[in-house]
Amino acid sequence: MRAGASEEQINHICDRIRAYGYTPHIIKGAERTVIAAVGHGDKKEHIEQLKSADGVEDAFPILQPFKLVSREVQKKSSVKAGNVTLGDGGFVVMAGPCSVETRDQLMQTAEAVAKAGAQILRGGAFKPRTSPYDFQGLVEEGLKLLAEARDRTGLKVITEVINTEDVDLVREYADILQVGARNMQNFALLKKLGSAGKPVMLKRGLSATIKEFLLSAEYIAAHGNPDIILCERGIRTFETATRNTLDLAAVPLLNELTHLPVVVDPSHGTGKRSLIKPLAKATVAVGADGLMTEVHPCPEEAWSDGPQSLRPEEFALMMKEIEPYIQLRKNELLAL
Amino acid sequence: MRAGASEEQINHICDRIRAYGYTPHIIKGAERTVIAAVGHGDKKEHIEQLKSADGVEDAFPILQPFKLVSREVQKKSSVKAGNVTLGDGGFVVMAGPCSVETRDQLMQTAEAVAKAGAQILRGGAFKPRTSPYDFQGLVEEGLKLLAEARDRTGLKVITEVINTEDVDLVREYADILQVGARNMQNFALLKKLGSAGKPVMLKRGLSATIKEFLLSAEYIAAHGNPDIILCERGIRTFETATRNTLDLAAVPLLNELTHLPVVVDPSHGTGKRSLIKPLAKATVAVGADGLMTEVHPCPEEAWSDGPQSLRPEEFALMMKEIEPYIQLRKNELLAL
Amino acid sequence: MRAGASEEQINHICDRIRAYGYTPHIIKGAERTVIAAVGHGDKKEHIEQLKSADGVEDAFPILQPFKLVSREVQKKSSVKAGNVTLGDGGFVVMAGPCSVETRDQLMQTAEAVAKAGAQILRGGAFKPRTSPYDFQGLVEEGLKLLAEARDRTGLKVITEVINTEDVDLVREYADILQVGARNMQNFALLKKLGSAGKPVMLKRGLSATIKEFLLSAEYIAAHGNPDIILCERGIRTFETATRNTLDLAAVPLLNELTHLPVVVDPSHGTGKRSLIKPLAKATVAVGADGLMTEVHPCPEEAWSDGPQSLRPEEFALMMKEIEPYIQLRKNELLAL
Amino acid sequence: MRAGASEEQINHICDRIRAYGYTPHIIKGAERTVIAAVGHGDKKEHIEQLKSADGVEDAFPILQPFKLVSREVQKKSSVKAGNVTLGDGGFVVMAGPCSVETRDQLMQTAEAVAKAGAQILRGGAFKPRTSPYDFQGLVEEGLKLLAEARDRTGLKVITEVINTEDVDLVREYADILQVGARNMQNFALLKKLGSAGKPVMLKRGLSATIKEFLLSAEYIAAHGNPDIILCERGIRTFETATRNTLDLAAVPLLNELTHLPVVVDPSHGTGKRSLIKPLAKATVAVGADGLMTEVHPCPEEAWSDGPQSLRPEEFALMMKEIEPYIQLRKNELLAL
Repeated sequence: MRAGASEEQINHICDRIRAYGYTPHIIKGAERTVIAAVGHGDKKEHIEQLKSADGVEDAFPILQPFKLVSREVQKKSSVKAGNVTLGDGGFVVMAGPCSVETRDQLMQTAEAVAKAGAQILRGGAFKPRTSPYDFQGLVEEGLKLLAEARDRTGLKVITEVINTEDVDLVREYADILQVGARNMQNFALLKKLGSAGKPVMLKRGLSATIKEFLLSAEYIAAHGNPDIILCERGIRTFETATRNTLDLAAVPLLNELTHLPVVVDPSHGTGKRSLIKPLAKATVAVGADGLMTEVHPCPEEAWSDGPQSLRPEEFALMMKEIEPYIQLRKNELLAL
Repeated sequence: MRAGASEEQINHICDRIRAYGYTPHIIKGAERTVIAAVGHGDKKEHIEQLKSADGVEDAFPILQPFKLVSREVQKKSSVKAGNVTLGDGGFVVMAGPCSVETRDQLMQTAEAVAKAGAQILRGGAFKPRTSPYDFQGLVEEGLKLLAEARDRTGLKVITEVINTEDVDLVREYADILQVGARNMQNFALLKKLGSAGKPVMLKRGLSATIKEFLLSAEYIAAHGNPDIILCERGIRTFETATRNTLDLAAVPLLNELTHLPVVVDPSHGTGKRSLIKPLAKATVAVGADGLMTEVHPCPEEAWSDGPQSLRPEEFALMMKEIEPYIQLRKNELLAL
Repeated sequence: MRAGASEEQINHICDRIRAYGYTPHIIKGAERTVIAAVGHGDKKEHIEQLKSADGVEDAFPILQPFKLVSREVQKKSSVKAGNVTLGDGGFVVMAGPCSVETRDQLMQTAEAVAKAGAQILRGGAFKPRTSPYDFQGLVEEGLKLLAEARDRTGLKVITEVINTEDVDLVREYADILQVGARNMQNFALLKKLGSAGKPVMLKRGLSATIKEFLLSAEYIAAHGNPDIILCERGIRTFETATRNTLDLAAVPLLNELTHLPVVVDPSHGTGKRSLIKPLAKATVAVGADGLMTEVHPCPEEAWSDGPQSLRPEEFALMMKEIEPYIQLRKNELLAL
Repeated sequence: MRAGASEEQINHICDRIRAYGYTPHIIKGAERTVIAAVGHGDKKEHIEQLKSADGVEDAFPILQPFKLVSREVQKKSSVKAGNVTLGDGGFVVMAGPCSVETRDQLMQTAEAVAKAGAQILRGGAFKPRTSPYDFQGLVEEGLKLLAEARDRTGLKVITEVINTEDVDLVREYADILQVGARNMQNFALLKKLGSAGKPVMLKRGLSATIKEFLLSAEYIAAHGNPDIILCERGIRTFETATRNTLDLAAVPLLNELTHLPVVVDPSHGTGKRSLIKPLAKATVAVGADGLMTEVHPCPEEAWSDGPQSLRPEEFALMMKEIEPYIQLRKNELLAL
């Protein structure tokens, strides 16, 4: 309550708290009165209502609002895409072009990343682009090429879905459905993915807090789909030297808060090819379950995201260099 | 080009620029070489590709990427919702509850805001909520109540649409379709709204730059709908004392860049009831075309956004107090 | 306490709370235990210590940490610089060049802004510049020119001090000492200004929260100087279309939290000459006590901040156009 | 130039460019005219002046504004504090309490961190605190205790200086002088440290861009002191789950831009004890030259920063666990 809140205001709040089914608990401080509401319930609405009452300075919940994805429920969950498992202590690499452009471009990339040790092929067929005049993706044609690349290489396929109406189509072709950063709070899409029957990788929104990120995952879980992978891909800050600010502290923090597997995307996280390799190593060291990175056979001919795409030989070098870090991490886990 | 870029690299870039259909123009500086590409064309892709080439330090466009909504096309456009016009030099107030909750709540609010001078009724039937456990809106039932309130009061109706699949339903009931901040880059929705046949109010995303905001408007325009209203509703910053940071400088800046009408939402912009009235006055003074604010007959019983909703009598007082500012602004425009 | 905190941990915390001189108050919730500490005292340190203890999830204070500058102490204070008063319900305009460059430049500006109705002359003699290769100010020579301009025009003088060692020198010449945004948390400087014997205008730091802003003012007050003016000058956000994001909501919010006068600087707040006039109007409308703006006789020859400086005739026009807003605001205050 | 800039305006700009000593170079585009200024010189001022001229849309430099600290000057520099070297390919750990509190606390910590393998002891004697009512440090008494701890343990000492007037005192006791985040743009202090005759560790400001960070280092270098260590310690963003957002991508980016050694402070970077160890591993993996972390014998009795301080046994465990990462990194460097 505010300083100087009246007895009447305090009583009014206690009455409301009782009406919501909680037990009020008054603590008279030297300068302020605090009222605790004890009990179970759907608190968010009540909190907003209490904040609106006269004499109230602030109201806030003590419990975290996410439940199904919380680490209080389970220590660590793993997500399977065919024979590839995320969250079982291994380290999974997803790689491929930003956009599927042509058969040649995709097959060349898929073969290169498979050879270098990637397990999952990424590639956008539906592209959410800032400008309406930018390339919007090959759509179903792109999905077919992805499936063809899977058949050729044995890689599993992850690809983005940007609209509820496309979910049925995309799930036919993809092993993992990706929700992009700009759709992290497209709640209609999240609900629909609850019944997609395929794992979902949810990318953190550009300005999403960790709490909002987990609540978006909770949407998918609450609508029936427990197979969720979280992806940290950088947040928007004042810094313009990198495309985004990659929040690697989010990885161990998420590991404390949720049982879901966590992967990191240093391509979008930095926007700079030269920064990907050092951040890939840091991604392993910080405890992530995997990595997503963009690879293009010829970045300077890429239709999107060229500056942040590795060339196949650069990708192979990165894979070679992160390998000892992956071993180190496995040894650590074995020693626990 | 980077310092020390080779002749070969410079020639390579010139070749690419010619291949894109532009004319390269080399400027040898004391320490760096700069290459200008002169000509018309779809630049964004080319710029990304050039950035990816060896020896290139940076590449950027000189022209703004939005065209149809640009002020270079037209000085000022106006948008009509029935007999209400935004962007004609007047000041339009949109008011109503965050969510449509019950018939009583809505009718009471609609009558109060109409009496106080609002011209447009706001109210959410589809609610994008951060948590899956929060109230998600009355859906079609809510739309019907909005239509009923319009019939009773003569107010026009603005309401949010959050998914492509709902556009046809919502346009049947609404006079203006609202795109919420979290959907500002839901490009599938923006495209669909291009053929909605009703005006669209686009809210600025939580971390959207002015340029991205205008490009999202450009999506709607490029897909056939020129009737677009922009709404500044606060951006996400480090400051937590207010819910968002209301960027009032965006209003005159948008007035320089685009011909579209601009309104301001100080309810979401601040999250605090006590700040709405002073910011409503500032909204008029800074040159906006209108204002959107939340009003609820009993904020402490609101199912959402109570702390930032005005009571009907507070709204009436605000309307009375902003009136002289509106007059002042009209006099200024007449004097031009 | 965390879920599952042991009895032992809870007792340990209660013991510590008693040791600090507070009374512990245990609230057993359905899933969590909350412990309230009731009493007076220097809480910050204790809170950090409690946060560090095992079994504790979070600890936070209920009271605001600023005291002397709080509105709970006094409703509104006013600050006098000679015959000019800030915070008495009037509206004071401070104007002048970013840097004092030459006698001609300063006298010309001072005369122009005095004629147009400004009451205080701004001008930097000590310049905090991002690069060591930028102009650093005329130092004492600049202060002398400011004093000469005061003698000629009757304007009061505000100028920045950037180091404790310069305070004695600057206070000899200035009527108000300015602390720049980059020094808002230069605590040695704030302490020294506690005994400056002249009013201080404290600019909000680029990434300072309202709470930190008030705590910096509290430093000056706690060290003996109650004559403090706060200046909102824009915060740093992701948006790059303006130099900073001017947080006008900070004005009414500060008016709720503190009794100190508040002025706004739309020159630094936007970095764009064309945006100053509309934001100056909004500054009046939102309830500020004054305005600071940069004016230069020839912005394209300015040694710093030319793009955000008004020409004298533009300043005169702004003064003319904000006048009716000032009248409107005065009428409002009279009607209270 | 803006679209539609007149011939006269273009000629005027060319004249100014010539007057500054550059050669103008006109590029007529399809819709815009661009003018390049070629030559050597102090560009910043000129750019601001050009931005201010009529008809100009924007003006920007092609070259980086920092010179002495740039990697174009030197590939990698190393900084020596006695027998400890930063930047030579090794990994240096700095550890100790946030504040020097008592002899016991400091000696106990110093012995523990020395035993665990740290080479440098940190500890604040002058504390820049947000509130005037928080503990402000033991001042000279604290410096003496640090020197005593150095004598006992052989550790080198790093401690913060917050005011020009204290530099002479602090340099007598410290091996490295630290500039805190809040003073990164205290230019008077930076200039003074140019002649301190001891290495300086400069922490990145809470909202400082990489460019501003390097320009602050350039101040120290330009005033005579080349022995500078950069410290990434987290930036301020919208995220509140961690105290700051640790920007690990800054490390490889700085390694591309500057020859100065770079260390990382995950204590301030996250504000959470449990996140320090994983981020310490990531710090090694990403390519930093060292690490700074807070250690306190009893965090729940710390006078400041307890929640982000490791206990001595936790620090020892961290040291043991990062050791294989340090070896891995050394092997990588050897293989180059």
